[in-house]
Amino acid sequence: MKEFELIKEYFSFSQSHSDTVIEGVGDDCAVLSVPDKRQLVTSVDTLVDGVHFFSDIDPADIAYKSLAVNVSDLAAMGAKPLGFTLAIALPKVDTQWLEAFSYGLKQASETFNIPLIGGDTTQGPLTISVTVFGTVKTGKALLRKSAQLDDDIWVTGYLGDAAAALGLHSKLNQLNDAETYLWQRLLRPEPPLAFARKLSKIAHAAIDVSDGLMADLGHILEKSNCSAKIKVASLPLSEQLTEFVGLEGAREFALNGGDDYELCFTAKSSMRNKILNLAEDFKVNVHRIGSITAGEETDIQLLLDGKPFQPKRQGWQHFSE
Amino acid sequence: MKEFELIKEYFSFSQSHSDTVIEGVGDDCAVLSVPDKRQLVTSVDTLVDGVHFFSDIDPADIAYKSLAVNVSDLAAMGAKPLGFTLAIALPKVDTQWLEAFSYGLKQASETFNIPLIGGDTTQGPLTISVTVFGTVKTGKALLRKSAQLDDDIWVTGYLGDAAAALGLHSKLNQLNDAETYLWQRLLRPEPPLAFARKLSKIAHAAIDVSDGLMADLGHILEKSNCSAKIKVASLPLSEQLTEFVGLEGAREFALNGGDDYELCFTAKSSMRNKILNLAEDFKVNVHRIGSITAGEETDIQLLLDGKPFQPKRQGWQHFSE
Repeated sequence: MKEFELIKEYFSFSQSHSDTVIEGVGDDCAVLSVPDKRQLVTSVDTLVDGVHFFSDIDPADIAYKSLAVNVSDLAAMGAKPLGFTLAIALPKVDTQWLEAFSYGLKQASETFNIPLIGGDTTQGPLTISVTVFGTVKTGKALLRKSAQLDDDIWVTGYLGDAAAALGLHSKLNQLNDAETYLWQRLLRPEPPLAFARKLSKIAHAAIDVSDGLMADLGHILEKSNCSAKIKVASLPLSEQLTEFVGLEGAREFALNGGDDYELCFTAKSSMRNKILNLAEDFKVNVHRIGSITAGEETDIQLLLDGKPFQPKRQGWQHFSE
Repeated sequence: MKEFELIKEYFSFSQSHSDTVIEGVGDDCAVLSVPDKRQLVTSVDTLVDGVHFFSDIDPADIAYKSLAVNVSDLAAMGAKPLGFTLAIALPKVDTQWLEAFSYGLKQASETFNIPLIGGDTTQGPLTISVTVFGTVKTGKALLRKSAQLDDDIWVTGYLGDAAAALGLHSKLNQLNDAETYLWQRLLRPEPPLAFARKLSKIAHAAIDVSDGLMADLGHILEKSNCSAKIKVASLPLSEQLTEFVGLEGAREFALNGGDDYELCFTAKSSMRNKILNLAEDFKVNVHRIGSITAGEETDIQLLLDGKPFQPKRQGWQHFSE
């Protein structure tokens, strides 16, 4: 099968959104219209076989996650999705693998309402690089640098599930209900995209939780030149996570586990009701876990029952020793 | 070295263009302003170690080419560059390699006046995926589908040099002048970006010659539902290529060699003088090699001395048998 046939067969499913996608797959570049008074936001994330996913995972899940983790970056900007490109290196043409991959990609494309607008298919070790495009009202992107003193710190969903699920890979045939839930949380992240779009009017700063809450909140603090206080007892933990690793373990995963693809955002305390109502409208769980404090040390003070709490490990870092 | 330090050290050189890049490296997404009445164009190309470049090549050249081949897609749309993202998988942190790579990337970024706006650095087999962004006046992109009957067919630069140079890799220490020129043509493509921007007012269809003239012109014909007639004697061949492989070999490389990153475009015959003047202004070589003919068979008729000419091989295709 030649490259062009391969693209036609497996990656030409999403040519809708004709109001914004002027030219999709099939020219030197895709052509997109960006409405007046809106800015373009874009992000790229790469998933590598054996590093970001297990080689034996259903290709549909790999594809879904490849797009979902990028959509999570759009959510973190409060952006409206415009489209995505896929650059994929494949060791060989395995039509069964490609069919499943294409199916999962289409599922994610439909779930997040974001069309495939172009890409590149080449031969090489399995590497999947997705670039997402979105728009925000000019000047209204949710930036990391916009947290303000005394802001509440919020997170969506539950934290730590995905990181805890990593250990389940060796026993996938014998998962109980809680473990099945956790495994799905690892495979199929659901960034709160629609909720986040509305949030841009209400919140100050936002980031997606991909490397662990401590690391990602740390980026907000660094860019905003402030510190934070987190109530460990307020961390949102799923029942399943607590059942699987106990309360103490769950807190560790919630603080430092990666792969959550939930949002961490800050907002004035006067916005609490608006945020809770918005979350209800979009059926998103939100939890207030702490507040922004003074001090440029970008320090995160963890408190449990009023006393300092010391977590055991640090967030995930590529290339760290 | 951690991922964030690595990005800061090697991939934070290009934060200029403050009129369009609102937020560059360092948030969940980059934020770009797209001027009113302009559309966004975007393309992604991936280069894989051992597939798209030899593993022992100077990383500066790998980086330069990674960006240049993508800039070539912007040229093929007649676009003004806006920025690019880099997604790179690295087997390990090799600071010497990264320094050279960063140097070459910066060179290309400056040559083509396109800033690095974001990216992703991860661990994995060496894979370099660059996404470029540009803008065109609304409705003015040079598309593959816009060729018209009786259009002239033009190409920029010389064809076949890069493909012929592939065989030189085994004797890099002993290249003569002609071979050195050819090798540089393979390493450092120079897509005629500035020329192409002005071309959008004059030409109909355009494509960049990356898979070989026959294959790439074929895409124009397919999208435009027409055929073409090419005068083989008019193919632009460098002296060095003819010296290296003879006239017959040079024509083969010009027709079917890949990696040229020159432009093939079509325009009304009444535009000939405008095109020649524009080429002179931008110090770009242009050659008129044939014309668009009727017929939906997307057939390319090659003529030499008025007789049909039969090339020996087909253009490059990933995954072909």
